Amino acid sequence: MINTLFLPELREMLEFQQAGELKEFCEALNPGRTAEYMAGLTPAEAWQVLQHTTPVLRAEIFEFFDLDHKLAILNDQDPQEVAELLGGLPADDRVDLVQELSEQRVARLLALLPAEDRRDIRRLQSFAEGTAGALMTTEVAKLDERLTVREAFDELSRQAEQLETIYYLYVVDESERLRGVVSGRQLVSSLARPNTRLQDLMETDVIVVETSDDQEKVAELVERYNMLAIPVVDKGRRLVGIITHDDVIDVVREELTEDAHRIAAVAPLEDGYLRINLLQLGWKRGIWLTILFFAALLTAIALRQFDEELEKYTWLVLFIPLIISSGGNSGTQSATLVITAMTSGEVRIRDWRTILLREIVVGLMLGGFLGLLGWLVSLAVAPDSTSALVIPITVLAVVMSGCLCGATLPLIFKRLGLDPALMSNPFVAGIVDILGIVIYFNVARGVMG
Amino acid sequence: MINTLFLPELREMLEFQQAGELKEFCEALNPGRTAEYMAGLTPAEAWQVLQHTTPVLRAEIFEFFDLDHKLAILNDQDPQEVAELLGGLPADDRVDLVQELSEQRVARLLALLPAEDRRDIRRLQSFAEGTAGALMTTEVAKLDERLTVREAFDELSRQAEQLETIYYLYVVDESERLRGVVSGRQLVSSLARPNTRLQDLMETDVIVVETSDDQEKVAELVERYNMLAIPVVDKGRRLVGIITHDDVIDVVREELTEDAHRIAAVAPLEDGYLRINLLQLGWKRGIWLTILFFAALLTAIALRQFDEELEKYTWLVLFIPLIISSGGNSGTQSATLVITAMTSGEVRIRDWRTILLREIVVGLMLGGFLGLLGWLVSLAVAPDSTSALVIPITVLAVVMSGCLCGATLPLIFKRLGLDPALMSNPFVAGIVDILGIVIYFNVARGVMG
Repeated sequence: MINTLFLPELREMLEFQQAGELKEFCEALNPGRTAEYMAGLTPAEAWQVLQHTTPVLRAEIFEFFDLDHKLAILNDQDPQEVAELLGGLPADDRVDLVQELSEQRVARLLALLPAEDRRDIRRLQSFAEGTAGALMTTEVAKLDERLTVREAFDELSRQAEQLETIYYLYVVDESERLRGVVSGRQLVSSLARPNTRLQDLMETDVIVVETSDDQEKVAELVERYNMLAIPVVDKGRRLVGIITHDDVIDVVREELTEDAHRIAAVAPLEDGYLRINLLQLGWKRGIWLTILFFAALLTAIALRQFDEELEKYTWLVLFIPLIISSGGNSGTQSATLVITAMTSGEVRIRDWRTILLREIVVGLMLGGFLGLLGWLVSLAVAPDSTSALVIPITVLAVVMSGCLCGATLPLIFKRLGLDPALMSNPFVAGIVDILGIVIYFNVARGVMG
Repeated sequence: MINTLFLPELREMLEFQQAGELKEFCEALNPGRTAEYMAGLTPAEAWQVLQHTTPVLRAEIFEFFDLDHKLAILNDQDPQEVAELLGGLPADDRVDLVQELSEQRVARLLALLPAEDRRDIRRLQSFAEGTAGALMTTEVAKLDERLTVREAFDELSRQAEQLETIYYLYVVDESERLRGVVSGRQLVSSLARPNTRLQDLMETDVIVVETSDDQEKVAELVERYNMLAIPVVDKGRRLVGIITHDDVIDVVREELTEDAHRIAAVAPLEDGYLRINLLQLGWKRGIWLTILFFAALLTAIALRQFDEELEKYTWLVLFIPLIISSGGNSGTQSATLVITAMTSGEVRIRDWRTILLREIVVGLMLGGFLGLLGWLVSLAVAPDSTSALVIPITVLAVVMSGCLCGATLPLIFKRLGLDPALMSNPFVAGIVDILGIVIYFNVARGVMG
């Protein structure tokens, strides 16, 4: 998001070193909006502007810069200033940025950070991509179970400065093991009884993830239980961090986009479409295209079995693409519907009977209607009205098999423990293509002898 | 999610009316988890169990039941008890449920609700599906701008009982117009200065949506600014509700699933795959299949132009499906990549030059490789080595045009102000099919004379 409205003014303020105005610009708006107004500046200019506000707000605005601007600033600006900025960023975002910098630069910056931050970065870096550990932030409000409500408030106002937002208050024992959770609402509404101990207030059935859990599990739990944040514990159930709702939205988006790619026979990209290296993109698409190419070769082999019919009834050739695409398209629809319904949790394997029944009904409707259209067309092309029947019969059968293959193949993949989205549309279409050819010429043989 | 572990015990407790045990069961666990253990009960049994806890917890557990169970309870159980339950549900969820009940039942239940709740339901019902108004809940922490921090805490502990969670504290003037926002963190860390007025503490640049704004705009803003909740105002900027992060996750999921469906040429479903009426499903698929059918007819017409070649070189027919599917598959990949990148905001129309350039490079790589494979196969089938060149040249050209069509058609649709996902994969494939046939036979003419 770039907003160029204030660009000339900003540049003028920078040129004439108008510190007061620059400070006001930084502080007047929501940090996200301030960042948008600065998106047209060069990274160096933006960094200069940010020097006019407090370190806290500087970090908040910086968070909304786009990745390229962030990296340019981290790479090129004064190490001392950059290290101070890093110290103020949320722990999870900080690690993601550090991972994009050169070894050399990281070493230089880490040396300038307090030992605690350095350890924190190293530790978060050690978790594998796609796990809860890599997703979490270590800034979490921890309260001792023996505190009273009044003491908890005092403790919180001490911690609040370092915390991004208070989602839930986690209650731990003396060895940092997670014992329970208190919501901000509960604490506020207990202010009337300030001497209640947290251990008597807290909910003890806490839903947690472990650092090594997969990010899809994280998203599933947060969505299922409508949580603002989910606590992350280590093997000893010690509270080590939380994952917040905004990171969960990112996971959901990532997961569904990956599904969409798999459905279209593209292996999931690790990077954005415009950022990924072209050789990698070629590989992620090429591997599937090659597999599909060999599947398509089978259609050629199938066609070869019908040499005689092809010679005798050349008009049949005209309808090959139409037959094939009718099957492929209905298969694509069914497969996508079943895969997305499975991803959202609406459909499970045990629903297979319902699914098949519904696909048979829909397949009959769709195949019947398209068959009718096909019959009208073939009456004009086929040599006689009997031969013209080949087209409608084939279309009906092919659409039916498209619906059934499209719906069942993802279910079978799921049953085998594979990702149902692997049963991509082109793959379904490839299988239906071969079936389509076989059905077509067998119907032709049957009808015309 | 069904957990049958406690089912026998629960049924026993119900049979022997063990009130104490049932109360403990309701209160021991996280409400979401309690609901899972009850999912195996009949709606009537579940409702009986819930009678053993407080109205607040009853509503919380009920929230996690699946839709069918919820509706069965609302429809069949004692109206007085059900009305009490409705009164305790979050305002947004309550309306969604009421909309599924019969007119008669709704009239009966509404009559039993306090006037305020009744008005609230009527008002929320009046917002169109897919707007911010329909998504919001009316339970929001509102504080007068003239309050001090200490007074704000007192006011909050009064309001807290009715509020689901406190996300942000919205500051309003005497006519309920939104003036600013204070985070829970800010308020807690200002406890040291209890006489500060909220108007001196609040952030005044608040990001809001209006009731009539589209839900996609809501999701976009919440994601862009990493908000926990976004305030909803009416035309006079009066604060009327908030939309919380969990509803935003649902919107993102809905939106991406709709995209996946459009990409596969299924008009978006208003209901789940298993819930939607079959005639409707048939229509939503049939409309696109019919359009695609007519597109495929054009391939038949294209083929007809090459009657002579078809008669002369029958071996060319064998490769028709392979040529067509190579183009279709590479087009499908490109279209999906561009559409998903546009949805996530990574790619914009102004990036078209970069996109085309990248697709040309990838198209050359993929087409070159598949062409090579095709050449090896055609050497075995074609009558001579010159004719065998038809296949690799065609495959290269067809894959290239697949990549280019797939990438540009969604961009053009976007440029025209249409949903790029409408340029579905089958549609791209249909266009590439026709191109493929024309390229194939023109190459054949060129090579073999």
